[in-house]
Amino acid sequence: MAAAPEGPSLADLGEWQLIDRLAAFAPAGQFDDDAALLTCGGPLVVTSDVLVEGVHFSDATTAGFDVGWRAAAANLSDLAAMGCTGALGLTVGLVAPGATPWPWVEAVYIGLQACVERQGGVLLGGDCSGGAQRLLAITALGNLPRSTSGEPQAIRRRDGRPGDLLVCTGPHGLSRLGLALLQQEEQLERRHLPQALIERALERHQRPCPRFDAVQALRCQQPKGTSWRVAGTDSSDGLAAAAAAIARSSGCRALLDHRRLPLDPAMANLAQAEAWCLGGGEDFELVLALEPPWAEALVQHLPGSAVIGALVAATGDGQHLAWLGEQDRPLPGDGGGYEHFS
Amino acid sequence: MAAAPEGPSLADLGEWQLIDRLAAFAPAGQFDDDAALLTCGGPLVVTSDVLVEGVHFSDATTAGFDVGWRAAAANLSDLAAMGCTGALGLTVGLVAPGATPWPWVEAVYIGLQACVERQGGVLLGGDCSGGAQRLLAITALGNLPRSTSGEPQAIRRRDGRPGDLLVCTGPHGLSRLGLALLQQEEQLERRHLPQALIERALERHQRPCPRFDAVQALRCQQPKGTSWRVAGTDSSDGLAAAAAAIARSSGCRALLDHRRLPLDPAMANLAQAEAWCLGGGEDFELVLALEPPWAEALVQHLPGSAVIGALVAATGDGQHLAWLGEQDRPLPGDGGGYEHFS
Repeated sequence: MAAAPEGPSLADLGEWQLIDRLAAFAPAGQFDDDAALLTCGGPLVVTSDVLVEGVHFSDATTAGFDVGWRAAAANLSDLAAMGCTGALGLTVGLVAPGATPWPWVEAVYIGLQACVERQGGVLLGGDCSGGAQRLLAITALGNLPRSTSGEPQAIRRRDGRPGDLLVCTGPHGLSRLGLALLQQEEQLERRHLPQALIERALERHQRPCPRFDAVQALRCQQPKGTSWRVAGTDSSDGLAAAAAAIARSSGCRALLDHRRLPLDPAMANLAQAEAWCLGGGEDFELVLALEPPWAEALVQHLPGSAVIGALVAATGDGQHLAWLGEQDRPLPGDGGGYEHFS
Repeated sequence: MAAAPEGPSLADLGEWQLIDRLAAFAPAGQFDDDAALLTCGGPLVVTSDVLVEGVHFSDATTAGFDVGWRAAAANLSDLAAMGCTGALGLTVGLVAPGATPWPWVEAVYIGLQACVERQGGVLLGGDCSGGAQRLLAITALGNLPRSTSGEPQAIRRRDGRPGDLLVCTGPHGLSRLGLALLQQEEQLERRHLPQALIERALERHQRPCPRFDAVQALRCQQPKGTSWRVAGTDSSDGLAAAAAAIARSSGCRALLDHRRLPLDPAMANLAQAEAWCLGGGEDFELVLALEPPWAEALVQHLPGSAVIGALVAATGDGQHLAWLGEQDRPLPGDGGGYEHFS
């Protein structure tokens, strides 16, 4: 997929010239000191992710630009999932073998920069080292808005209560379809798919957008006279895993309504649609638990969002996820995500 | 050196049990959300480092506890080098092959926690993944004090001026001696070394301490009526590299006084003493450029600190480091540090 880029290798450049080149992706002078200096006016959110070649991305299916974009987007999505409405920026640790071509690294940083600057952030700093495989270690930072009384308006997994409605901010499964297309998975009959769906699925997989806009909508739709209480997480590990995580942390049970599964209409006929909607992962939408008036106001004003179920009291059997009114339907797994150490 | 620890491997545990075990090193509930929430009352400093097995540490010479301690200390030292007087905490990205024994990882996190808690910080969060080699990606965060008028009291490399004195906060070279002992370097005649020196060198290499105490002393000794202007960096890449970095960023020339080299008296007789003092690296002291009254007050009140030279106007030949009054003496290199991509 990605043609081998030409140009000097990292070993040709050496560490100091590499750092000079990487500094060009940050504001002038940003890389001059031992660390980055930020102004920070209130509560701060910080999140770190590592993305390893062969585990989280593959040079065969993902171009350098998309590796950078997706790495930034995954971290920024965690900021949105905590209630941030934008990003201050991120630091990047780059590890790569000396033979790695500079044009690949350049493309990664162009992608990182494009994604973070779209959200108002900058490249704050970082580090680089040789190593056996390509790897990005990202830390993202964001400010959290405060209420007029000064309380941080955070979204926490643990803040759900029985009676809350579960809302997701968009359809699920499209990113997994994009991955299947890139990996040329055999069970996928590509020739039966409309070209427009193929393009949307690839776009969704390669260029996910953190849902800061959904956090803005959530804030705008808070019913007057209510206090801030929002439970939530992002759906990077899959929709079912996100609902189960909120339920587990909140000491509740999440009931998913099978008739309200947030399938993308264009992929509803696919045999894998339901499985990928529930467990495909990497859609980077938000899953929220809200009091019904707030939930209803949000889905009315945020296109693509929908009520998908509700939180109810836990039953004591340790099962945090179930179908609403359909006890015989097999449950989606709630383990979430990939097993990175097997 | 480090016996192979027994116990389950990371593949035996699986990712979710591993995360549960790692969460025990952080405050209760800290790992429950997509990201960590901090209260942050002013300017913030953030720094990231990656430490790769075979490049930055070796299982043969460094026990897990020391890998963790040194990784935390290197990042915290960057906070001190920016003027922080302590740490809020750090995030840790862990990458390791599935066969890695859990007891090694546990020892690393015990070391990380011991170092960061000693400076008032906590483990804020992180991520983990399988990968081809062991690796830690650390991001450290610290608050920066402000002046009464609200200005951040940062230490920047670029703030030096001709006429400033260069001060370092402690002797240099001991960490490199510790490394030579651990690596059993042939040219080192260990049997001629006093046992007390051996122990101090190993301690210095394995358990470096970020010099937040020196930043406190610097702040206490600021002459009355002067405004905040401190140039500096830490000496992680070597003393000569630190002085050259300040000079380069400040558009000056650093003159090192050969008669004031900060050798540790106990290693002054070693053939390598001067080379290791100037270029050994990883002593994690601070090198500062200060107006003479401030420099003199600091060295008078901070045991172990010393004036080692001065900044003068640049000469336009691009050479940022020279000996004071000894033009024929060979210059130490100012490239600094190791070449990680060769």
